[in-house]
Amino acid sequence: MKIKEHILIVGAGLCGSLLTLRLAQRGYMVTLIEKRPDLRQVEQDAGRSINLALSDRGLRGLRLAGIDSEAKKLCIPMHGRMIHDRQGNTFLSKYSGRSNEYINSISRPGLNMLLLDAAEQMSNVEIIFNHGCKSVDLENASGTFKNYSTGKEVNYSADILIGTDGAGSSVRKSMFNHKKFLFSFSQQWLTHGYKELEIPATKEGKYRADKGALHIWPRGEDMLIALPNLDGSFTVTLFLPYSNSEYCFDKLTTADSVLSYFKKEFPDALTLMPNLAEQFFANPTGPLGTIKCSPWNCYGKSLIMGDAAHAIVPFYGQGMNASFEDVVVFDEILESFEGKENGSTNWNTVFSEYEKNRLKDTNAIADLAVDNFHEMKEHTASELFQKKRKLEMSFEAEFPMDYYSKYSLVTFNEKITYEEALKRGRAQDKAILNLIDDGKLTEEMSLEEKLAIVKKETKDVLHDDAVVRNLK
Amino acid sequence: MKIKEHILIVGAGLCGSLLTLRLAQRGYMVTLIEKRPDLRQVEQDAGRSINLALSDRGLRGLRLAGIDSEAKKLCIPMHGRMIHDRQGNTFLSKYSGRSNEYINSISRPGLNMLLLDAAEQMSNVEIIFNHGCKSVDLENASGTFKNYSTGKEVNYSADILIGTDGAGSSVRKSMFNHKKFLFSFSQQWLTHGYKELEIPATKEGKYRADKGALHIWPRGEDMLIALPNLDGSFTVTLFLPYSNSEYCFDKLTTADSVLSYFKKEFPDALTLMPNLAEQFFANPTGPLGTIKCSPWNCYGKSLIMGDAAHAIVPFYGQGMNASFEDVVVFDEILESFEGKENGSTNWNTVFSEYEKNRLKDTNAIADLAVDNFHEMKEHTASELFQKKRKLEMSFEAEFPMDYYSKYSLVTFNEKITYEEALKRGRAQDKAILNLIDDGKLTEEMSLEEKLAIVKKETKDVLHDDAVVRNLK
Repeated sequence: MKIKEHILIVGAGLCGSLLTLRLAQRGYMVTLIEKRPDLRQVEQDAGRSINLALSDRGLRGLRLAGIDSEAKKLCIPMHGRMIHDRQGNTFLSKYSGRSNEYINSISRPGLNMLLLDAAEQMSNVEIIFNHGCKSVDLENASGTFKNYSTGKEVNYSADILIGTDGAGSSVRKSMFNHKKFLFSFSQQWLTHGYKELEIPATKEGKYRADKGALHIWPRGEDMLIALPNLDGSFTVTLFLPYSNSEYCFDKLTTADSVLSYFKKEFPDALTLMPNLAEQFFANPTGPLGTIKCSPWNCYGKSLIMGDAAHAIVPFYGQGMNASFEDVVVFDEILESFEGKENGSTNWNTVFSEYEKNRLKDTNAIADLAVDNFHEMKEHTASELFQKKRKLEMSFEAEFPMDYYSKYSLVTFNEKITYEEALKRGRAQDKAILNLIDDGKLTEEMSLEEKLAIVKKETKDVLHDDAVVRNLK
Repeated sequence: MKIKEHILIVGAGLCGSLLTLRLAQRGYMVTLIEKRPDLRQVEQDAGRSINLALSDRGLRGLRLAGIDSEAKKLCIPMHGRMIHDRQGNTFLSKYSGRSNEYINSISRPGLNMLLLDAAEQMSNVEIIFNHGCKSVDLENASGTFKNYSTGKEVNYSADILIGTDGAGSSVRKSMFNHKKFLFSFSQQWLTHGYKELEIPATKEGKYRADKGALHIWPRGEDMLIALPNLDGSFTVTLFLPYSNSEYCFDKLTTADSVLSYFKKEFPDALTLMPNLAEQFFANPTGPLGTIKCSPWNCYGKSLIMGDAAHAIVPFYGQGMNASFEDVVVFDEILESFEGKENGSTNWNTVFSEYEKNRLKDTNAIADLAVDNFHEMKEHTASELFQKKRKLEMSFEAEFPMDYYSKYSLVTFNEKITYEEALKRGRAQDKAILNLIDDGKLTEEMSLEEKLAIVKKETKDVLHDDAVVRNLK
């Protein structure tokens, strides 16, 4: 058997760790290099994405590497959005009318550790921590790394290099600064930032709120959400404008202002967070950005994947899922082209085909995530939106094989690409919202009749758009 | 009278020269600094945008500075697109059904010289050539410039600094690299590049083709266009993929390949270009990019305008026009806020209001220009598209006060913003294309009936979109 290539993977976060595991399973020699210390040996920072939403696309990636069962032990199912109003009233808006469709709250460091442990057990994997990537020689699959223990710079090289070094990717910066090809690039910041807080467990280790839902306090411009952790606590995230708003990070500079803000906007959450002000000023405020770029590869030698290639805002709960799906798509492409050129692999072809297949989907989920930011903070409470969701729930419960909402298409239908989910989902939303707004769905109609009308209208919306695009 | 601020303008291209002239007219002391030599004293480079399309929005800017009459002497009116097919047949697709609506071919260096001459005549203007901007101190409105004559670096500073230094703006790069605020930025490259060529005048100084039109040879993926010059020549631009196409820049590497390509695709153009191959290899190939960013200003001290803030692809002929309109909008905002804070001007307010007012419009024209790239190369020859244009021409001729095509809204209606033109124009296109495709406009109908149906359908399209956006 021909010895397979040596692959250098930069960044041992969720994507890099899963990719390492999978490529090692395929027989490659993998060196995984990470700027932070080994997270299995150090205390975690407070206030940095303690938990995440894991759904079908992410589970598919874990399944590919045979690690889904282990991961599920870390999961807490969430069946819908628990909406909290200013009076502390709540109602559950389910994610789907089908009972087997839910998302999971999972610990980011917990899952990362699981992946690192699994990768480390492979004899063909080497993991190096505490080495920050300074620059990459894209044409030669090598990089200069600073060893933070010694302060010295060292070089690592391999046959190919893959950057999974996150939204602030050094590998991507090397591509941006490389002047030998045209690099399309976009970084878009929302006017809002985020801050992570905590609802602690009770003294008995119990949850202070329903652990089976993603809690959300939508308030127009600002929003609070909370996801459960295994230890009985919830990780809470506040999304708030930086400035130019009645309430914004620039104005919340004293404990009093923070407490009176929460008292007015999120009174029920406030009662669950005894040390709110302390946390508020101890934890950092982070920006919310979308990054898109192309090409992802150069010279058939260097590639970027995961957040390094397509960072998205967190409002669809798809960041990690999209990155894990990257690994699945990459694996499929590799399967098709591996060793097919006189026994060798043409990596330029693998990388190009991967991008051709994948870019439109990561662009789609980036746009969907920004859409959902507006939906969550503004629309969740709107009457028209609620009527739409109610109708969709009925469709999904009554006709589970016949109707999938945009949320279901994105979250629970791994066989449909993000691009297709965006196209179909947006058309469906437009159809339903306009049918309701125009009074074309009446009380007398059966649910079946309503579904037929919605399907017909969705088809028309898609057709009208296609005529403009194709000018046949 | 209070002495007005000293303004440092970086970049003496079209936008910077007009801005200098206008701000000097308002009484500011202006230093205009440019990296290139004085273009009035040196030979022009071949192959760099020798002429441009000037239309209503651009003329409005020139009118504001009282220089429109002089500029019109440099103009050659073009009333429509003269479409050339592969057999050399031509037909004229007019820009508007109204006879007073046309665009103008104008010499870029000619207009630039006119603006520099006018600015230089003002006693409160200083122009410095041959000084390249190396970096900008954004907080202090100062910059480091390399004097290319002496090789030495010098500093210039003022009360405020405005970067009009084009698509590759140094001032914008300083903003991008400045880490104290979130800078949203996007650079998007088309897969196509461009190359400028020339159809020379006849020996008698006559035009070899109709000078009253913009000539276009649409061929699906590639396209040739030609605009007339005052000296009887035409400046021709070839738009062609860089690679991955039957014909592309990567493959056109020999005189034979270039000539046989033109012979097959543009035979009538070939006969007008005796030294085609020579020109082809002498002139550079340029990329086609869109740049968007925000914020445009920082600290109320530094601002970017024109291509530096919003470079667009040339397919709507609006690049220069948008930059001149920038000057008009900036002048209006300045008029509202100048001296209004205890006799002083709050530049932070001026800059912020300017961006608030203007950004959505420059984003819109950027998107429209990319749309038009696809329209020009793919759709101009499509039957459905031609039916739409024919109907629009009839509407505009018969009901000149009642109907404006997207092209007319963008090009000839300076009172309508680019954003509004995009919204209304796209809705109108979608309505007409679908009405034709669905056979809902029949032969028996009068033109008036057709217009009423189109207007109703356009309103419905806008309404359906609004319901989704607003979720009222």
